[in-house]
Amino acid sequence: MGGGSALDVSETAEEEARMNRVPESELVLVPGGTLITATPEEGRLLAITLAHHSIHNIQPDLDVLVVGRPVYSASPDSLIAVSQVIALEFQTIAAANDYWRDRPTG
Amino acid sequence: MGGGSALDVSETAEEEARMNRVPESELVLVPGGTLITATPEEGRLLAITLAHHSIHNIQPDLDVLVVGRPVYSASPDSLIAVSQVIALEFQTIAAANDYWRDRPTG
Amino acid sequence: MGGGSALDVSETAEEEARMNRVPESELVLVPGGTLITATPEEGRLLAITLAHHSIHNIQPDLDVLVVGRPVYSASPDSLIAVSQVIALEFQTIAAANDYWRDRPTG
Amino acid sequence: MGGGSALDVSETAEEEARMNRVPESELVLVPGGTLITATPEEGRLLAITLAHHSIHNIQPDLDVLVVGRPVYSASPDSLIAVSQVIALEFQTIAAANDYWRDRPTG
Amino acid sequence: MGGGSALDVSETAEEEARMNRVPESELVLVPGGTLITATPEEGRLLAITLAHHSIHNIQPDLDVLVVGRPVYSASPDSLIAVSQVIALEFQTIAAANDYWRDRPTG
Amino acid sequence: MGGGSALDVSETAEEEARMNRVPESELVLVPGGTLITATPEEGRLLAITLAHHSIHNIQPDLDVLVVGRPVYSASPDSLIAVSQVIALEFQTIAAANDYWRDRPTG
Repeated sequence: MGGGSALDVSETAEEEARMNRVPESELVLVPGGTLITATPEEGRLLAITLAHHSIHNIQPDLDVLVVGRPVYSASPDSLIAVSQVIALEFQTIAAANDYWRDRPTG
Repeated sequence: MGGGSALDVSETAEEEARMNRVPESELVLVPGGTLITATPEEGRLLAITLAHHSIHNIQPDLDVLVVGRPVYSASPDSLIAVSQVIALEFQTIAAANDYWRDRPTG
Repeated sequence: MGGGSALDVSETAEEEARMNRVPESELVLVPGGTLITATPEEGRLLAITLAHHSIHNIQPDLDVLVVGRPVYSASPDSLIAVSQVIALEFQTIAAANDYWRDRPTG
Repeated sequence: MGGGSALDVSETAEEEARMNRVPESELVLVPGGTLITATPEEGRLLAITLAHHSIHNIQPDLDVLVVGRPVYSASPDSLIAVSQVIALEFQTIAAANDYWRDRPTG
Repeated sequence: MGGGSALDVSETAEEEARMNRVPESELVLVPGGTLITATPEEGRLLAITLAHHSIHNIQPDLDVLVVGRPVYSASPDSLIAVSQVIALEFQTIAAANDYWRDRPTG
Repeated sequence: MGGGSALDVSETAEEEARMNRVPESELVLVPGGTLITATPEEGRLLAITLAHHSIHNIQPDLDVLVVGRPVYSASPDSLIAVSQVIALEFQTIAAANDYWRDRPTG
């Protein structure tokens, strides 16, 4: 738009498309490749990560994700819906770690 | 529309209908026929696949699926809802694999 | 409508009511009377069937079900909601079958 | 309305209120007082009953329940939401019955 | 409103605020302090109580709760959503009581 | 607003931004670092805390959270949705504590 040839515009669009993609590291579904964590706090972080990464895998185009902002900050009800997904992921992770019963508390 | 006989139109419509169908491979409900996977990462992929395939089985007509685009990229709230289905499917798969407790981490 | 006496109309209405009912076989809640299936694929089919049949039992009048079309093809969000019900039913069936751990893969 | 004194109207209103209440038998939360059933089919029926009765206990005034019609026949999405509650109740009942593993199939 | 000084009004407002608060007993999260109940019926009642009390703890101001009426009688869909929460709480309580398997039926 | 230079305004904005952030203590995901609690009442409180903290971690900017008020007091349906998240978190915590079966009642 404005200065530059049609080719320039095309290249910019391509570059923009690349920059608007979720980074490759975000497309790994289970970072670390395990559900086992040292503490409940780390287990909780993994639950949040699983939720994020599965959203990124369904929709890797950041532009669609409300112009690059995380989808779930959009509304109070979306926040609650995401916290529900986190609760479900944490159920799985907590069970995998036998609820960290044998670990000293933080 | 435009050139061609009524018959041609009919044949095109039929062919279009065929092309607009979800491919047969997508209608298999549990690809691989097992819930057992080598790693959590593969388990997560299977969870996403189960979610996709059950949507495709309920509605195999791609045109209905918002003109061929995956249904769930429609809105942030739809994305969150799909990520919740994935979390539920993953609970089942993770339990089936005894949470991959005895496998080396990725 | 058009030809026929008032009685005829009444009989037609009655017949139509009968034809618009979900068939009796659809009102069985657990077809086959067991949660045990030979394969995960069959377990998945049973999960879909349980979801369908419980909707049909709540609302056996097909006319209410959006003039005879399956309720859940109405919108992308409905499709996702149904796929969530299927995920929940599958959790039960998979547990019932001990996740088909001892069966050869398909 | 029409004939009768103010008192009559009051009595009619009271009687109407009584008639518009969910019957007492519907307010029992777990009919039969057990989660154990002979077959999956009966377990499924119990799941539907639990869902109904908990709605009736929250809101025993039938008038509020869309003028006496069951609340959940209102829309396709409500039907799906009820079928999700049934799926959750059935998870509990199926576990209580150890998935009817040792019972002959229907 | 009408007679009385500004001070009177203030005191009335304070008293009203006190009266509009959920009673303290409603803010106990687990009445009785245990998940163990004698019967499934009592377990079901506890599930309903847990759901109520957690809503009251999030929002103890009755005025916000639709002018003192229980929040969940508002609409059919709210009723169904509450019945889903009850189903989830009951899953926990039923597991805690080992599904009352060893108790005589009601 | 009113007196002060542009710089003053900027500093005020920065300070305001700091004050509008959820306090650091709220960003700890599992306060106490364990899922084990002495009583069901404390377990319930932890469930509510987990739900709150995961919302705060997704959206730590209080201004977005409906001008500093907790997101979930917005509407009856939001309240019910939060109570559902609490029910899910409590399922995990109750299982971690083996349902407090061996503890004396409160």
